[in-house]
Amino acid sequence: MKNYRRELWFNVPQRFGLVNITSQIEECLRESGIREGLMLVNAMHITASVFINDDESGLHQDYKNWLEKLAPHEPTNHYFHNRTGEDNGDAHLKRQVMGREVVIAITQGKLDFGPWEQIFYGEFDGMRRKRVLVKIIGE
Amino acid sequence: MKNYRRELWFNVPQRFGLVNITSQIEECLRESGIREGLMLVNAMHITASVFINDDESGLHQDYKNWLEKLAPHEPTNHYFHNRTGEDNGDAHLKRQVMGREVVIAITQGKLDFGPWEQIFYGEFDGMRRKRVLVKIIGE
Amino acid sequence: MKNYRRELWFNVPQRFGLVNITSQIEECLRESGIREGLMLVNAMHITASVFINDDESGLHQDYKNWLEKLAPHEPTNHYFHNRTGEDNGDAHLKRQVMGREVVIAITQGKLDFGPWEQIFYGEFDGMRRKRVLVKIIGE
Repeated sequence: MKNYRRELWFNVPQRFGLVNITSQIEECLRESGIREGLMLVNAMHITASVFINDDESGLHQDYKNWLEKLAPHEPTNHYFHNRTGEDNGDAHLKRQVMGREVVIAITQGKLDFGPWEQIFYGEFDGMRRKRVLVKIIGE
Repeated sequence: MKNYRRELWFNVPQRFGLVNITSQIEECLRESGIREGLMLVNAMHITASVFINDDESGLHQDYKNWLEKLAPHEPTNHYFHNRTGEDNGDAHLKRQVMGREVVIAITQGKLDFGPWEQIFYGEFDGMRRKRVLVKIIGE
Repeated sequence: MKNYRRELWFNVPQRFGLVNITSQIEECLRESGIREGLMLVNAMHITASVFINDDESGLHQDYKNWLEKLAPHEPTNHYFHNRTGEDNGDAHLKRQVMGREVVIAITQGKLDFGPWEQIFYGEFDGMRRKRVLVKIIGE
């Protein structure tokens, strides 16, 4: 069994942002030399997500509007968490809707994807450096 | 390390549908011959889900009503994504609530499940052929 | 390839509760002797979750309030599922928001975590004994 590990760093300049990381993940896979196995890609921070969906700007605006409706940033004093001095209570909730991680099948040295699957880093409390973990096991 | 891959195809005749795929997944596991390992089952399309819950028709109606409340199909012009000519903006959101994938432990050649766990394909934009990927690694 | 399996039992005395299980999971990892691989931790019951987020009591109150707003317990006759004699229709919905499982990278014999990641058992229909499954594969 082979294994591979790498961290990817992001610094999204706004509070909210969705970053297509598919090509960086493909680069990790090439670097690993693994042909058959499973890949885990997860946010290492608890106010961010890794998820798979469509690279379409209208949809990304829809996600932003929808998440803001489900878990509004304002009023920040609505969240008990923000009594700790944080203002990111909403981001912890948004991250649960979008998920922490994806697990991806590796087949014949490729991400085993359907036609529109793209991997995104979802930032809900940006303006600082945060990490994604890539771990692959297989052979 | 052994690995196994198979695609399952579905054509749900309505926009929304939940299909119990547990027996098909068990058949994949038997075919793989893998006794100990991890199994990934994921939707290959970004308006569908694979999830684990109860096979109870009332609950399935509850999921339908609830998802429609969280991310209504109508009015379709509410979604920026639908300006591309699509009418499935809601389905991309519903899929995030229900999830893309499940990872299942394989123990002694069986799905290592609790008493009520069943695997479902969740369709939120049906009336066409779509795929689920099954990947197993182990020995 | 090595593999490891263990069940953890919980009996949350209220309907809703979030239990930090990180130290129990670390004990499983030590017991496994696995240094590089992937770990699956999943609820074996369909009205409970395993998820990763922050161990902060204000945030946990926020999760409780938010989930109750997204999928209220009352009125129980609002859910078709409850016509079966159950009163936990809401718990099946809450579990989908918070997720069934987490997959964790194992690196150099440790949970490969960011600075604030902690693992929780999320109970949405408590007052009875329920299980979490830990499965690790690697070497």
